[in-house]
Amino acid sequence: MEPIRVLQWGLGAMGSGMARLMLEKSGLKIEAVIDGRPDYVGKDLGDVLGVGKSLGVTITNRPEDVLKKEKVDLVILATTSWLSEQMPDLRKVLSAGINCISIAEEMADPYAQSPELARELDELAKKHGVSVLGTGVNPGFVLDLLVVTLTGGNHSVERIEASRVNDLSPYGPTVMKSQGVGTTPEAFRAGVADGSIVGHVGFPESIHMISDALGLGVDRIEQSREPIISKVHRETPHVTVEPGMVAGCAHIGVGYRGDKEVIRLIHPQQIHPQLENQDTGDYIHIYGKPEIHMAVKPEIAGGIATMGIAVNMIPHVVAATPGLKRMIDLPAPAALMGESAYSRHI
Amino acid sequence: MEPIRVLQWGLGAMGSGMARLMLEKSGLKIEAVIDGRPDYVGKDLGDVLGVGKSLGVTITNRPEDVLKKEKVDLVILATTSWLSEQMPDLRKVLSAGINCISIAEEMADPYAQSPELARELDELAKKHGVSVLGTGVNPGFVLDLLVVTLTGGNHSVERIEASRVNDLSPYGPTVMKSQGVGTTPEAFRAGVADGSIVGHVGFPESIHMISDALGLGVDRIEQSREPIISKVHRETPHVTVEPGMVAGCAHIGVGYRGDKEVIRLIHPQQIHPQLENQDTGDYIHIYGKPEIHMAVKPEIAGGIATMGIAVNMIPHVVAATPGLKRMIDLPAPAALMGESAYSRHI
Repeated sequence: MEPIRVLQWGLGAMGSGMARLMLEKSGLKIEAVIDGRPDYVGKDLGDVLGVGKSLGVTITNRPEDVLKKEKVDLVILATTSWLSEQMPDLRKVLSAGINCISIAEEMADPYAQSPELARELDELAKKHGVSVLGTGVNPGFVLDLLVVTLTGGNHSVERIEASRVNDLSPYGPTVMKSQGVGTTPEAFRAGVADGSIVGHVGFPESIHMISDALGLGVDRIEQSREPIISKVHRETPHVTVEPGMVAGCAHIGVGYRGDKEVIRLIHPQQIHPQLENQDTGDYIHIYGKPEIHMAVKPEIAGGIATMGIAVNMIPHVVAATPGLKRMIDLPAPAALMGESAYSRHI
Repeated sequence: MEPIRVLQWGLGAMGSGMARLMLEKSGLKIEAVIDGRPDYVGKDLGDVLGVGKSLGVTITNRPEDVLKKEKVDLVILATTSWLSEQMPDLRKVLSAGINCISIAEEMADPYAQSPELARELDELAKKHGVSVLGTGVNPGFVLDLLVVTLTGGNHSVERIEASRVNDLSPYGPTVMKSQGVGTTPEAFRAGVADGSIVGHVGFPESIHMISDALGLGVDRIEQSREPIISKVHRETPHVTVEPGMVAGCAHIGVGYRGDKEVIRLIHPQQIHPQLENQDTGDYIHIYGKPEIHMAVKPEIAGGIATMGIAVNMIPHVVAATPGLKRMIDLPAPAALMGESAYSRHI
């Protein structure tokens, strides 16, 4: 069986991690790489990844040179969180007749915030006989697909509450800034107001996916971002938080049907939550018949699982019927460990 | 949007529960019912279910009268656990050009134990342009689909261990007998030897599904059934267990690739496990990168979820491409709570 030929577009932390992962997978072959960094262009992928050998794949900043459907079965886009920013590249990939997986958070369910762009993508994919999927650990997995799956045997669902408690300590200064870590409560509120503190990107997408999958009829989504004010000293190589300062962002998204709250998603992101006795973990509570309470402790590792799920979905996307897909539209993701993981679709 | 027209075949505990559930679902309509019980034949479904009104559906024991694709979109088969016993009915349904969902445990993955019958079903379904799925809480959900889904972000999976600890106390004498509850350890071992004590039906199917989805290459499955010898007095309306007697069956299935154990599924079924401080629950442990530990406490309710998942999969099966499907081949199950749960496939 021939390996699936992949074009990796974007070699940031996620993109280069996915490229390394694909090198381990017998059913996948990296055929080309696009990245615009001047110090990457023209170099061999093996040198940039530091794998100690040449891979025979030269990094290019010219998409038109490598987006050729005779050579590539699927593109992984790892360039931005935002749909509008990614649309020009998505149009190029689909118009070239190539399948696509994006880890842009807003691509997890473009119908949530940009139904017109979603319809454009769906039509473009169908016109060219390919499929396009947005995925990642969250949105795309923990607070949506896993929630939906857990309702699979339910006779009824009245209300859903799910939370993901993680530890930002391994991350660098960019993440600290976007979550408000190390600021004062006042500066945090100002940062939320001016858009520099964003919290989690993906609540509208996750809530829309759950509502759509179950038919919960959510017609309004509200979000709140509150500072997590530390009671203790917390510290990472990049930031120091004294008591009274902000250790992170408590971001909540709530979906309503009329006046009734039906979905509540909670994602407090902070450094060292265990210093105040908070266990990191993923928690899902389904209220209905039957009631279901799930815990994954510690939480499913974020960066690792985003790289993993994008790569693991490749055979599903290549095998899918044409169109725009969400994780709720395709078979369950599965770690790619051997032959049948690729061949079972045929 | 027109409701999906369903034929319910089999009105035992599961079948009548599914029929009751379907009456609550706006997107489903029970069009016909097949059951051979002499006291059911010729009666209205509403009378048999005791819903207090006629439903205009007369129960028949003549499949040939109601298996008509102009009238029925999908059949739910709830008649037996065993594939060979169900094959004649499956052939009738598929040959009539009607989609099918079966809750026979062996139908969860017929490739596991009967690859020839599986291929026959796949070809027959494709020939008539319909799809056929086996499902249920287990096999079909807890110890296979949920396991596979949880590996979705993994870079690697070395080994999987999952267990389902439930409480048999609500069940009647048939289940007590098939699990050996209330016997002596000697009688238990004799019952396992002569096949009257079966334990759980579904380990080969669950292990095969996981192995196939991930490509784990399992080439041998071993099962063991041991008596759970009670240390305390346990009692239900149907059985009494004194200390030293058997409270249930500890059934384990292990999948090997060569000499290496890669999947271990554990399902101790007994009455009143909490009397010996065992929490009922579903537990999944993925060893690999990353490591994942999941717990659902208490366990996802068995009978309720089997009825639920069979009904909830109806829109997925109607929308699927033709052929024999397993839960790993279709989108995630989702509780059917409103319009978009049915229409999102179109």
